Amino acid sequence: MEIINRLESEVRGYVRSFPKVFTHAKANKMTTEDGAEYLDFFSGAGALNYGHNDEVMKKALLDYIESDGVTHGLDMATDAKQQFLATFEDVIMKPRNMEYKIQFPGPTGTNAVEAALKIARKVKKRDRVLFFTNAYHGMTLGALAVTGNASKRGGAGVNMPGATPIPYSGYFGEGRDTADDLDMMLSNSSSGLEKPAAIILETVQGEGGINVADFDWLKKIEALCRKHDMLLIVDDIQAGVGRTGPFFSFEPAGISPDIITVSKSLSGYGLPLAITMIKPEYDIWAPGEHNGTFRGNNHAFITAMAALNEYWRDDKLEKSVLRMSDRIQERLNGILSANPAFKAEVRGRGFFIGIDCEQAELADEIAAECFKNHLICETAGPDDNVIKVMPPLISPDADIEAGLDILETAIKTVLDKHGLLNNAA
Amino acid sequence: MEIINRLESEVRGYVRSFPKVFTHAKANKMTTEDGAEYLDFFSGAGALNYGHNDEVMKKALLDYIESDGVTHGLDMATDAKQQFLATFEDVIMKPRNMEYKIQFPGPTGTNAVEAALKIARKVKKRDRVLFFTNAYHGMTLGALAVTGNASKRGGAGVNMPGATPIPYSGYFGEGRDTADDLDMMLSNSSSGLEKPAAIILETVQGEGGINVADFDWLKKIEALCRKHDMLLIVDDIQAGVGRTGPFFSFEPAGISPDIITVSKSLSGYGLPLAITMIKPEYDIWAPGEHNGTFRGNNHAFITAMAALNEYWRDDKLEKSVLRMSDRIQERLNGILSANPAFKAEVRGRGFFIGIDCEQAELADEIAAECFKNHLICETAGPDDNVIKVMPPLISPDADIEAGLDILETAIKTVLDKHGLLNNAA
Amino acid sequence: MEIINRLESEVRGYVRSFPKVFTHAKANKMTTEDGAEYLDFFSGAGALNYGHNDEVMKKALLDYIESDGVTHGLDMATDAKQQFLATFEDVIMKPRNMEYKIQFPGPTGTNAVEAALKIARKVKKRDRVLFFTNAYHGMTLGALAVTGNASKRGGAGVNMPGATPIPYSGYFGEGRDTADDLDMMLSNSSSGLEKPAAIILETVQGEGGINVADFDWLKKIEALCRKHDMLLIVDDIQAGVGRTGPFFSFEPAGISPDIITVSKSLSGYGLPLAITMIKPEYDIWAPGEHNGTFRGNNHAFITAMAALNEYWRDDKLEKSVLRMSDRIQERLNGILSANPAFKAEVRGRGFFIGIDCEQAELADEIAAECFKNHLICETAGPDDNVIKVMPPLISPDADIEAGLDILETAIKTVLDKHGLLNNAA
Amino acid sequence: MEIINRLESEVRGYVRSFPKVFTHAKANKMTTEDGAEYLDFFSGAGALNYGHNDEVMKKALLDYIESDGVTHGLDMATDAKQQFLATFEDVIMKPRNMEYKIQFPGPTGTNAVEAALKIARKVKKRDRVLFFTNAYHGMTLGALAVTGNASKRGGAGVNMPGATPIPYSGYFGEGRDTADDLDMMLSNSSSGLEKPAAIILETVQGEGGINVADFDWLKKIEALCRKHDMLLIVDDIQAGVGRTGPFFSFEPAGISPDIITVSKSLSGYGLPLAITMIKPEYDIWAPGEHNGTFRGNNHAFITAMAALNEYWRDDKLEKSVLRMSDRIQERLNGILSANPAFKAEVRGRGFFIGIDCEQAELADEIAAECFKNHLICETAGPDDNVIKVMPPLISPDADIEAGLDILETAIKTVLDKHGLLNNAA
Repeated sequence: MEIINRLESEVRGYVRSFPKVFTHAKANKMTTEDGAEYLDFFSGAGALNYGHNDEVMKKALLDYIESDGVTHGLDMATDAKQQFLATFEDVIMKPRNMEYKIQFPGPTGTNAVEAALKIARKVKKRDRVLFFTNAYHGMTLGALAVTGNASKRGGAGVNMPGATPIPYSGYFGEGRDTADDLDMMLSNSSSGLEKPAAIILETVQGEGGINVADFDWLKKIEALCRKHDMLLIVDDIQAGVGRTGPFFSFEPAGISPDIITVSKSLSGYGLPLAITMIKPEYDIWAPGEHNGTFRGNNHAFITAMAALNEYWRDDKLEKSVLRMSDRIQERLNGILSANPAFKAEVRGRGFFIGIDCEQAELADEIAAECFKNHLICETAGPDDNVIKVMPPLISPDADIEAGLDILETAIKTVLDKHGLLNNAA
Repeated sequence: MEIINRLESEVRGYVRSFPKVFTHAKANKMTTEDGAEYLDFFSGAGALNYGHNDEVMKKALLDYIESDGVTHGLDMATDAKQQFLATFEDVIMKPRNMEYKIQFPGPTGTNAVEAALKIARKVKKRDRVLFFTNAYHGMTLGALAVTGNASKRGGAGVNMPGATPIPYSGYFGEGRDTADDLDMMLSNSSSGLEKPAAIILETVQGEGGINVADFDWLKKIEALCRKHDMLLIVDDIQAGVGRTGPFFSFEPAGISPDIITVSKSLSGYGLPLAITMIKPEYDIWAPGEHNGTFRGNNHAFITAMAALNEYWRDDKLEKSVLRMSDRIQERLNGILSANPAFKAEVRGRGFFIGIDCEQAELADEIAAECFKNHLICETAGPDDNVIKVMPPLISPDADIEAGLDILETAIKTVLDKHGLLNNAA
Repeated sequence: MEIINRLESEVRGYVRSFPKVFTHAKANKMTTEDGAEYLDFFSGAGALNYGHNDEVMKKALLDYIESDGVTHGLDMATDAKQQFLATFEDVIMKPRNMEYKIQFPGPTGTNAVEAALKIARKVKKRDRVLFFTNAYHGMTLGALAVTGNASKRGGAGVNMPGATPIPYSGYFGEGRDTADDLDMMLSNSSSGLEKPAAIILETVQGEGGINVADFDWLKKIEALCRKHDMLLIVDDIQAGVGRTGPFFSFEPAGISPDIITVSKSLSGYGLPLAITMIKPEYDIWAPGEHNGTFRGNNHAFITAMAALNEYWRDDKLEKSVLRMSDRIQERLNGILSANPAFKAEVRGRGFFIGIDCEQAELADEIAAECFKNHLICETAGPDDNVIKVMPPLISPDADIEAGLDILETAIKTVLDKHGLLNNAA
Repeated sequence: MEIINRLESEVRGYVRSFPKVFTHAKANKMTTEDGAEYLDFFSGAGALNYGHNDEVMKKALLDYIESDGVTHGLDMATDAKQQFLATFEDVIMKPRNMEYKIQFPGPTGTNAVEAALKIARKVKKRDRVLFFTNAYHGMTLGALAVTGNASKRGGAGVNMPGATPIPYSGYFGEGRDTADDLDMMLSNSSSGLEKPAAIILETVQGEGGINVADFDWLKKIEALCRKHDMLLIVDDIQAGVGRTGPFFSFEPAGISPDIITVSKSLSGYGLPLAITMIKPEYDIWAPGEHNGTFRGNNHAFITAMAALNEYWRDDKLEKSVLRMSDRIQERLNGILSANPAFKAEVRGRGFFIGIDCEQAELADEIAAECFKNHLICETAGPDDNVIKVMPPLISPDADIEAGLDILETAIKTVLDKHGLLNNAA
């Protein structure tokens, strides 16, 4: 690690939480240079929903490289790109009756968000976009403007106009409907809230602390968009591609976003890929108006296609995720019930689950304790107060249980240290 | 192509100039689905300086994938990342006496620029950055703010504060030193030009039309940065990694930028990778202040390391590029001399050469004619008035000549059509 | 009126509501060129709290002009200015235990607000200022940024950064404390609400529709300012100088703003004058950092001094206003009770009273009907839905009653026209 | 002065240069509380072109006040306003074949500029306005955005978007036409300079240091406005109303601005008044879109009308100013010629003259020395390096000479102190 500590910028982050050198990875496990194996409950922050180095995708990728398939194609037509598009249409869009044009921005989530914001502003000819408390949409300036975290915002060093934060679903607790509040402000021509072009939201906020939007609230927000002539952008970068169970996280809410951003697990294999899906009537881009060198990452097209074919032609994966999601939440809630002095809450959908600790420092210590015991898990939330439980979707049940065992032990160890453990349990 | 025309967003660009489906590529050639072969004078807009699917890198990549090396590593430590850093230090930085910290932003050029702008603003606690006429730095909002092109800027749809355009080297022609003008405005406390945090520049403007900065002017700009307490950011995304001959384009000017952005050909194989190099004294990032899911693209580390080892441990590539650069410019100037009615200018350094056509529509027609004859080349410049001549650096001499033959014929065909051909020649 | 219609800009406003040429004015009455007399229930939008051409001030002003006292003094020291300052300190600040430095910005309310915002941002080194739904603070760009009205904001034509609207006292109705909501967002480092330099508010919103802030809410907002290190700016331009009874509108709430803006009735005689009061510890201006040609309007100093001496050395005016305020509200509520089909609400403090009509068009018709019957009153509110009842503070009781008679008749006439009159009453 | 030092904000400025308490003023002289008389070479920063307390205006004002004429009229129609408009049309606009609509913004120069910028942006639906190096247009946020001075800009404390500084006439010295440079940037769609709505300029920059625009350059700028579809705003607040000789400073350049701002000496008597003149085709304001409490300052209408009638129905004043301007410049140049070690330059038009001192501190000392000898004059320019010579236009020749005597002595005294005096002269 000497060279990383010496040469890599101080901005490096995860290497501080997980201070080991990893060399190999397979499915839901990662291996360090000294041969130690770690269970993965983090999934590359949602980019490895199918685990590491999936065999089917790996084979497709090796074949493609062997054959000297086009690697870098800008946005020229390639065989790989066409096959990806055809598969995405066939496997994802058609069965869901979705009609969208697909934009390939630069192959990162933040770039997909930038493209979404640009086209929304262009369509509506207004500059304001509403975003939500605790939202996270990326680090480039346009996406950062709609991200809540103060320290990340502070990194901008320049004014970020055209974005206003609005309380998220449940932000003020039960009995308060923040969508109704927003409607009131939008309906009042003297509220000071300039008419927005769009609302951008995550159905489950990942970095913000695994905050789950009510489906009714989502429907209301969609209705507000129609009523006040705004576009609805769903950023499904972390919550999408099965993380909550279904391919798109918003499916069970029954809403139809105008723009959808997808990235992270889209390529399946952890390769950079991102798309911005736009309802055809809003696809008013001029040619080349938003471009980027790596928007034709053909290796990623190959693995993405393999992933779609492998996992989304039936509902096995989705069902398995929903089933084990209940189990995970049940076990976590069990730990909480057994230790009433540990003020915490379990939240989430699918394999996108969090334990919100009232005392933020506990979360950090628990995650560190997990890593010591060879379980990779991370924290999120405004004060890093939420332990994220995000195993690869393909994790065998037994490994999930094993990971939860480690997590449970870690929680108990930390609670004990803080005098919060219920010894009677 | 039906599926692309039907499903891909209207924003698609190159596919309109090169309306063929490519399936395979090797070195300086690309092959379409019907087996036709095209000479590449475009190099993936500078991302394929070593050509397509280089054998050495390919082997390293296949081995890595076969072995289940970590593919996606966020910014955790991996063996591949450490080896890349060590190689970059050993092959690139040490021989040039360079001391920089390496930041891995999201793996695209625009993301490297966003990181550069953020850290410069953070260091100087000012929001203004100067950029140059005809500059191009990327499409995300921070980078777009320092990009000159009006139609791309218009895509933002929102105010982009903190950026002021300044005339580039030679912008007003001979005898006018735009660096002196800038000095005067910066020295005048009532000029209205707010004290900047930094200046960002390309030593050769690619998208802006292959505009080459004088080395003296670059030195003056560096001196201005010292005098007025600004950081100097060199965006070497398109001009770097040998495109102009040396690894960094600014080497012959003898300047020492405070921040350098590198991407495009850095991975060697066309895979997404980007770094922001920061002088250690300015690396004041807080951990995680700028992050991104794909900043640990290990496949790219592997191919980048192979590329550095293969091409930069000696000066053969650089010398070869400089040698053939003279040849290319000689031939192009020959065509111009022979056709005095064709008002045009040849400009460039290394394999970063342009033919600036006074009549912009000629450039477009010539590029189209080239493609018809199986040569891939593109246009750039404010009115797409410049034909870019950017072969892979590894192109065999004979292929360069063959490409120039096609280009010459294309020019003559178009000149003839417009009655500009000198039939006597 | 021909010349006004022909030469004055389309932006003219009140002349459209009151299409008569006025020539003379005295106390609470205005006279037109044809000798008709109008009762004034508008008081120059709050600039004529002591009525028109008060005899005592008039005499002081005539004497000063006769003697060739300095008229225009920039911010040089003049006898008149010194006397004004001494009187303001003696009559207003000392009895209230107030310690403030007095800034003379340009002699308009909006300029006083601009100065307040600048100094708050300078003190806190942050750019964000919170303002409230339905707020009105002025038309120059800094003040407009913190004004709620959409059509006025739209006049800016340029982004107005650094300002965020927040729901005002009672905005969401009973049982909802918007100060608590704000506390929650300010306490959450990921709310997306950037840490503000200041909060600016009116204790009674005038243009926003005579919205009265709860005193408890004001105290909470003051506490929030202390807790979150923000300055509290009270814009007392319309509500101050006795309009609500006491000299400063915030006195009964028991709060101590860091910055106070006063203008409109400050000069007493309707002459342009404005001050920005700043707690001494925040008066960190550099000399000349904010200036303006007319900040030394000595005529206004003379009349302001006379007004302070005449009306504020005892509490007669304040008591009289509070007494008649009850009477006005009683009569207005009586009209409402008698006509239950007329959905409206009476709100206000002192002589700053409004009738909020659920059907906005009624307000407009009632005001027009009043004018037809020689009573000047105006509408306010997001949809001009509130009839403002703002007589000069010095109006004789009988004239108030007479004005209310006209207003009552006007209401009945309009209600009748709309079939809303309770004929039984 | 104790109360000013104790109570007035640190922002106070001129009182520091002229630390005396003034009580009376007449024509071109001001008197202090101890009876000392000062010659005025400053004219209230251009607000007192007709001197102090002109007898004719005074009489009109006294009569108006005596008769209880309307003092404060918002923008209702009053007799005084109608007469002002009729006189302005008759005396100023008709003889010059000018057709403009008159807007009454708040009665200060900065407010007139704010209105000008708003309407220009509204007309062109673009947010950018070009302003010039060393420009000064006011202190409210919109006007400040187009003001050059760095310390004043720094007072904003918030980003001021939509304004770009451009080198003024002669900024880079002889042989460099900054209008041509601007044309080149505006014609280049990749210059990064967003298409502006308008250009705002002073024909002679006052606060910027008495910089005089060439008439040819002004014509070129006007032509650029036509060519690039921008509005031309001339801010004639300081240079207008005869300061340079003619009523409008731009008259001899033969240009026809789209928008003109006039304030300072418009009321004649030093009372706050401002107008924004708009070509009828651009007067697309919505009623009330820009308003302000004191936009109907009827006292100022009365004195303004008297001033127009008194001074502008013939060309005596203009001729007298131009005649004595030559004399002033002759004497000043004589002083400079006699003292070659004093590196300075005399510049100006009419009674708007400056001595630009290469050593800035000399200017300050000379002005202080003048005040010691009972001459009021001020400095301007980026480093306060320019002594302003701005007597009231109505100053008797003998007083001008007397003032110049004091100034000459002051210069010599300061030069002597610095060893720069030519003793041989």
